[in-house]
Amino acid sequence: MEGESMEISIKEIAQMLGGKLEGGNKDMKIHRLEKIEEAQAGSIAFLSNLKYEPYLYTTKASAVIVSNDLELEKPVKTVLIRVENPYGAFADLLSAYDQLTQVKKNGIEQPSFQHDSASIPSDIYLGAFSYIGENVVIGEGSLIYPHVTIEAGVEIGKNTIIFSGVKVYKDCKIGSNCIIHSGVVVGSDGFGFAPQEDGSYKKIPQTGNVILEDDVELGANTTIDRATMGSTILRRGVKIDNLVQIAHNVDIGEHTVVAAQAGISGSAKIGKYCQIAGQVGITGHLSIADHTIIGPQSGVPKSITTPGKVWTGTPIMEHRDFLKSSILLRNLPHLAERLREVEKKL
Amino acid sequence: MEGESMEISIKEIAQMLGGKLEGGNKDMKIHRLEKIEEAQAGSIAFLSNLKYEPYLYTTKASAVIVSNDLELEKPVKTVLIRVENPYGAFADLLSAYDQLTQVKKNGIEQPSFQHDSASIPSDIYLGAFSYIGENVVIGEGSLIYPHVTIEAGVEIGKNTIIFSGVKVYKDCKIGSNCIIHSGVVVGSDGFGFAPQEDGSYKKIPQTGNVILEDDVELGANTTIDRATMGSTILRRGVKIDNLVQIAHNVDIGEHTVVAAQAGISGSAKIGKYCQIAGQVGITGHLSIADHTIIGPQSGVPKSITTPGKVWTGTPIMEHRDFLKSSILLRNLPHLAERLREVEKKL
Amino acid sequence: MEGESMEISIKEIAQMLGGKLEGGNKDMKIHRLEKIEEAQAGSIAFLSNLKYEPYLYTTKASAVIVSNDLELEKPVKTVLIRVENPYGAFADLLSAYDQLTQVKKNGIEQPSFQHDSASIPSDIYLGAFSYIGENVVIGEGSLIYPHVTIEAGVEIGKNTIIFSGVKVYKDCKIGSNCIIHSGVVVGSDGFGFAPQEDGSYKKIPQTGNVILEDDVELGANTTIDRATMGSTILRRGVKIDNLVQIAHNVDIGEHTVVAAQAGISGSAKIGKYCQIAGQVGITGHLSIADHTIIGPQSGVPKSITTPGKVWTGTPIMEHRDFLKSSILLRNLPHLAERLREVEKKL
Repeated sequence: MEGESMEISIKEIAQMLGGKLEGGNKDMKIHRLEKIEEAQAGSIAFLSNLKYEPYLYTTKASAVIVSNDLELEKPVKTVLIRVENPYGAFADLLSAYDQLTQVKKNGIEQPSFQHDSASIPSDIYLGAFSYIGENVVIGEGSLIYPHVTIEAGVEIGKNTIIFSGVKVYKDCKIGSNCIIHSGVVVGSDGFGFAPQEDGSYKKIPQTGNVILEDDVELGANTTIDRATMGSTILRRGVKIDNLVQIAHNVDIGEHTVVAAQAGISGSAKIGKYCQIAGQVGITGHLSIADHTIIGPQSGVPKSITTPGKVWTGTPIMEHRDFLKSSILLRNLPHLAERLREVEKKL
Repeated sequence: MEGESMEISIKEIAQMLGGKLEGGNKDMKIHRLEKIEEAQAGSIAFLSNLKYEPYLYTTKASAVIVSNDLELEKPVKTVLIRVENPYGAFADLLSAYDQLTQVKKNGIEQPSFQHDSASIPSDIYLGAFSYIGENVVIGEGSLIYPHVTIEAGVEIGKNTIIFSGVKVYKDCKIGSNCIIHSGVVVGSDGFGFAPQEDGSYKKIPQTGNVILEDDVELGANTTIDRATMGSTILRRGVKIDNLVQIAHNVDIGEHTVVAAQAGISGSAKIGKYCQIAGQVGITGHLSIADHTIIGPQSGVPKSITTPGKVWTGTPIMEHRDFLKSSILLRNLPHLAERLREVEKKL
Repeated sequence: MEGESMEISIKEIAQMLGGKLEGGNKDMKIHRLEKIEEAQAGSIAFLSNLKYEPYLYTTKASAVIVSNDLELEKPVKTVLIRVENPYGAFADLLSAYDQLTQVKKNGIEQPSFQHDSASIPSDIYLGAFSYIGENVVIGEGSLIYPHVTIEAGVEIGKNTIIFSGVKVYKDCKIGSNCIIHSGVVVGSDGFGFAPQEDGSYKKIPQTGNVILEDDVELGANTTIDRATMGSTILRRGVKIDNLVQIAHNVDIGEHTVVAAQAGISGSAKIGKYCQIAGQVGITGHLSIADHTIIGPQSGVPKSITTPGKVWTGTPIMEHRDFLKSSILLRNLPHLAERLREVEKKL
């Protein structure tokens, strides 16, 4: 980030965010956004996770965005900007900064490959060594980085960003305002084989596709398999982290988030607004209710029908039961000892 | 799949599959293959997993392939085609449909890179930006998609499909009729380091290679490390899902299947006809007997010597013991309560 | 490895390694390095893991490198070379062999893409279809394989090897003597979203970068996310296996090793000289003390403050407690039975 800079006063930032100022020199200029534990003079930071509160009293940041509700334990040297949602406000500030400092890529770099039948708008970036196949349609304002393969029949919406090395198999559909990170594979064959009498396997052709609706983000090296028939669907606003596996015919509801290295097996139907933590495994052919939260490394062997609950463990239990069981498991040696005592007495 | 179509009567399909017809209009034309829960008039579906049986009585499919053994609970409106193995029969039908509608790629797209010393047959597809190194040998009928790197000394058999962005390191051998999905890495260095006295590590050169025998399929972004010495081997008919890690010097027996995100550590020897579920972890330097089945997310710390058993858990137990333990674990609070009662009485 | 060969006597090898010779014909010529269980006449092998000791008495290797401390259980037919550290000595031998047989790549293959502003030394290998962006700086002796994307502003040190298909996002810094395997993604966006009132998510721009210090090795298809602000840092000598996820703002201390498919969440700070096994999950915003060892598939929910301990399980316990709990867990049915007996008696 060297070389990039901004100059705006603390007061102006507070106005931008609709925040209330507290203490210090409001006319001081801000040049950088930094983390509260590393911030230097001339920078603005934020405090959302209260684990980091001790840094508020020692930070060198010229200003810190905090919650309206925060009660100070000690005096602070920095200017406070109080808002409803400090994380959200800081995100807005980062976005503004990002807009300011980012140069939008444009034009077609050579060598690149575009099939004659492809429909490519004038307002686009195509990186060198990008490959655009037969009958591909790309919307305005989209960015296709180097080494991307877009196979025949794929449709991509407007203002979608596809980073270098992404591979999209034939006939898949990607919405507008999506972000797909490097190494993602969209539309590879689902893992479907019919066992034969001699113990070998016969491949089931995977004739469907993948549909990513608008505002979907996929993390680096994530894989989304095409459907056997029909479509694997990630609905509007779904956010997927790195190295996640989404199998054939999975359907993920709107605004559900899936953290790194989780895996969702074939034909599972995940609700809206769910949160699936890292390294979770979900069995195939089941349903997960809306607003479900699943803790890290959990294993989900069957459907979750009641919405809005929190689950953990392998196999999953309700989170409070998991905590109880974990403590008892840790105390098993003590329990066994007590049983021995009882047996002795009898 | 729009635009692709077929037209064949239910009777003709039954003849193709050697199935028995039951009920309805056998001369009706079939245009599409669909899932039983989504099927519309003019389509054929199948019923294999009995979870989906309720759809049999409501489906709009014109015909459904079912098992000879299926006893109907209610009358159906659709024509039934009864066969021994509905999933297998439907797979055959899908294959026939796939053959009919797929155009086989052929020719060499430009720009691409072929070393002068490479042996490339005339009947081949090389996508744009594919890279074929020194002394590479490729068999007839193979398809190499865009952005594939084939390093020096690699040999590839006949009719093998290598999708875009696959990377094959030097000296590896790939059989005939293999399918390798996008983003797969074959032949990267095994993770071998000799600890030094100062706590740092010295790299152990990985001088071996990887051998994939015939009929192997590798899922998207899977990684197969080369051997330190000798070969990492995946034998005939092995099927590997997405994001799987196969470490150096692993040897996987014929017709074993490994589901997504499983990991097999160095020098492990896996038997034939095994089934390893998703997110399983297998320790290095052990052996797994033939026909072993390992459940999802399990951890395998030592060899399995008896063939044909089912294992689950971390560390693994025989599946029936795992089920018992899971129930008892869930009931631990109740067990602890009962122990407290007993203690009170004494 | 066919065609590559060496010819050196057992005596010369012993001198190279500073080892003591024992038994047999010391003038015999060695042509190959092989594994003890597969070795043939004319080859040298080593014995480090005592699991493999039985092979010492049956091996056809002409010489075997063993530990000074090894006490033979039976007579051996092979020549022994005794050293302090057989694995290390064999690694040295493999390195010498590797140096001898490897041809160092050099020059720029075409077509490739270099931005005019990029600084590229004369002593370099740039593979065909490599992409070097604006203001990129690459050090002498580095190797950039085909299909690598190096985005604007990236700096790469000397003698670093970047295998085919690696993607490095803008502004990241890679040290000298690093090895980055195929499919690695360095600098993709961290997974940061601010929840909105309607349940949707707003992207937090990820404006930081990734810093890899010297001597770092990254395994195939591993992903390292850029920091939200500041840097994600992998310090000197860190070794990462395949398919590992390192989230935004993680900081990994010198000479720590991380095995395949492990995941480290955002802002976690990992100490020096740690060993993190395969498929481990580490929660965000915590610290792990130096010299910590974490067993396979473990889940780490909170900080580890005492250095040098061994942990296993989900959630982690000290390893000896984990072993105790595992045995008790397996014996739960028996424990429940004993409790029933006690209840009957009362």
